[in-house]
Amino acid sequence: MTFRDLIAAKRDRRKHTREELTFLAQCAADPQAHEVEDYQLSAWLMAAYLNGLDLDEAADLTLAMAQSGDRLNLEGLPHPWVDKHSTGGVGDKTTLALLPLLAACGLTGVKMSGKGLGITGGTIDKLSCIPGFRTDLSPEEMVSQAKSIGLALTGQTPRLAPADGTLYALRDTTETIASMPLIVASILSKKLAGGAEVLGLDVKCGSGAFMKTLDQATQLAEMLVEVATRCGLPTHATITDMDQPLGRAVGNALEVREAWATLMPDAPPSRFRELCVYLAAETLVAVGWSKSQADGQATAEARLQDGSALDKARLWIEAQGGIFDAKALPTAPVVRDLKAPFGGWARRVDARIVGQTVVDLGGGRQRKEDIIDPVVGIEVLVEVGDQIGAGQPVFRIHANSDAQAESAALSLTTALEITSEQTPRRPLVLGTH
Amino acid sequence: MTFRDLIAAKRDRRKHTREELTFLAQCAADPQAHEVEDYQLSAWLMAAYLNGLDLDEAADLTLAMAQSGDRLNLEGLPHPWVDKHSTGGVGDKTTLALLPLLAACGLTGVKMSGKGLGITGGTIDKLSCIPGFRTDLSPEEMVSQAKSIGLALTGQTPRLAPADGTLYALRDTTETIASMPLIVASILSKKLAGGAEVLGLDVKCGSGAFMKTLDQATQLAEMLVEVATRCGLPTHATITDMDQPLGRAVGNALEVREAWATLMPDAPPSRFRELCVYLAAETLVAVGWSKSQADGQATAEARLQDGSALDKARLWIEAQGGIFDAKALPTAPVVRDLKAPFGGWARRVDARIVGQTVVDLGGGRQRKEDIIDPVVGIEVLVEVGDQIGAGQPVFRIHANSDAQAESAALSLTTALEITSEQTPRRPLVLGTH
Repeated sequence: MTFRDLIAAKRDRRKHTREELTFLAQCAADPQAHEVEDYQLSAWLMAAYLNGLDLDEAADLTLAMAQSGDRLNLEGLPHPWVDKHSTGGVGDKTTLALLPLLAACGLTGVKMSGKGLGITGGTIDKLSCIPGFRTDLSPEEMVSQAKSIGLALTGQTPRLAPADGTLYALRDTTETIASMPLIVASILSKKLAGGAEVLGLDVKCGSGAFMKTLDQATQLAEMLVEVATRCGLPTHATITDMDQPLGRAVGNALEVREAWATLMPDAPPSRFRELCVYLAAETLVAVGWSKSQADGQATAEARLQDGSALDKARLWIEAQGGIFDAKALPTAPVVRDLKAPFGGWARRVDARIVGQTVVDLGGGRQRKEDIIDPVVGIEVLVEVGDQIGAGQPVFRIHANSDAQAESAALSLTTALEITSEQTPRRPLVLGTH
Repeated sequence: MTFRDLIAAKRDRRKHTREELTFLAQCAADPQAHEVEDYQLSAWLMAAYLNGLDLDEAADLTLAMAQSGDRLNLEGLPHPWVDKHSTGGVGDKTTLALLPLLAACGLTGVKMSGKGLGITGGTIDKLSCIPGFRTDLSPEEMVSQAKSIGLALTGQTPRLAPADGTLYALRDTTETIASMPLIVASILSKKLAGGAEVLGLDVKCGSGAFMKTLDQATQLAEMLVEVATRCGLPTHATITDMDQPLGRAVGNALEVREAWATLMPDAPPSRFRELCVYLAAETLVAVGWSKSQADGQATAEARLQDGSALDKARLWIEAQGGIFDAKALPTAPVVRDLKAPFGGWARRVDARIVGQTVVDLGGGRQRKEDIIDPVVGIEVLVEVGDQIGAGQPVFRIHANSDAQAESAALSLTTALEITSEQTPRRPLVLGTH
């Protein structure tokens, strides 16, 4: 078997065997050793994009990619140990609050996270704002910490699913990102290699997410659950709104601050808090610890209100060397409010525009090699459905200079649509699978 | 416009504009200058292979590729100056005899030729067997020689249609060769850059050719003529048989010898001679110098029989520094005949197997960087339809060692099919366009 055979097979719409996809993953993990060139991998990617991969192929490719490098062995942790993954959005700091909440519910939370690209924030970027926090735990440290305090998180190493590393970088520059089976294999191969026992997925849907429509998001959620199950990883998926940014803060240090505030026993109700409770409940139901969503929500609510989720967050951050104190987080030198030009109801708060504005401020990466500025960001002070008075602050810009703030204010003017008619709030949860 | 826009457009089945294809050819001609990577070019190639290019796109791409580097300016030559091109086959030494024959008919023959790859021989490889023969004429030398003796031939430089150089090398290793519009653009861009005024095409069809069926060959011939015409190059195409090797000799020095022998006034009739006369007549009709095929054939026959074609060949070879003497050509140390195991009629003489055997002997290239052995080859002593006696020699192997000859004999046993029933000869010309 040569790599050219694989290109020809997919070009001609033939179904790949498991052996072929194992070979493909090995070639992608170490192209040089297999004398395969990037331009051959990208030719296969375009053929796979256009001619598709069925569920068998997606599952075989996922497993092969998971097995293409190191795998984290978490045997010995108290059952069940759970992982969560979001398909990515704007202001999505869910892991920072959900992981301690799950641990407070008695589950063991273990996660490998990545860096952000484009408008999609990365958990590792957010956690890196915390002075002293380590994102490079060894496998032994992961297991030992998860055993002792119930949760641990580390950054992905290049040795985790290296086949995905190669293929993702090529897809990113050859317009082959938007292939459902390739997306599924990319996400799940890393989750499988990360050693999870149960996986909860948050599939984002809307302008700030990769999946713009509910149809697309549903298709992705269904394929993720089906392929994960075929690969032996029990998985549940929740589709949630990403048409407006999640929560109030967008920007790395701002999001850490919001996540911690949300874990306070006296935190006010919010869409972000609601999401954490909902996802925790889904996982509690999935592992059989709660009988229903309502039951699971009650458990999670109780763990927020008795301060145990906040305690888990403190234990976690400190175990990994960080200072658990919002005052220790870096702040921006320029903070400026943008006010509503007239009154009405907020009909649209565009997550994509807000996310792009934060990237432009330096809070996200245009390209992989870009360096992130942790202090910049935007506080979104209104939600779709809110009534707004003329002159009321609607965005708070955190910038490094007046010029930066000016430019951000300009681009944000198109992010908020105010209408004279009352507008319904957007549902948070759009579906479960 | 970025190259990624082009990939996305063809991925989504959008029709490219002329501006886009001009940009594409510029990127392919100098990827570094345009910050385009090979893996992006190959993603586009696979998208173009699968989603196609229509005639407008094929013509725009052809012109853009022709304009991507140097162009030979032949203005000032006596009209009409003609070029010929074969899509490639086994034993195809047509240029060596046809170019002097056209010149003997009063036309001016100018041609740039390439090297061979796989079972397809290259004219430059054949001519390189001639002691002293130069294949690196400057544009000025080309024009001056064509003016003075009516014909000139040189090797393609990398500066001729460099976009094709890049794209062809990528197609060769990414299974995207077999795309009709990409084949057409590759062939015609070099012909346009080579400065031809009228082009005669020999589209080969059969086991030893790229196009295996008459349907495929017809489609290619029609597209070549249509696209060339749109690009302003009057072109006629003849589809000819390549199911059995062309002529008797396959192998570089052997083919030169056969071509020269065929130009002798007293040369016996043969399929190869017949082809040269037919193609010369097609071109004479195309430029309006003959009223019909029959008329053109009579003219060409006369130029063979009065020795003027042979004279032109001598003038040509000597003008380019070569020794016009078959005895000066190199010969193989081992010559061995393979005999028919039983009598009957030759039903099949497989051009592909014969061609591959010559490549295995060292007479062709498996990969571009391989070095060719000029002396090895095979003489095919039978044609489809011939009656054969048991023990009659059917192949004559020219090898560098006994072991090589042994191995060639083994692979040739499957090249000849002998049947007990009389078998018709194969027609030589399968269609004209």
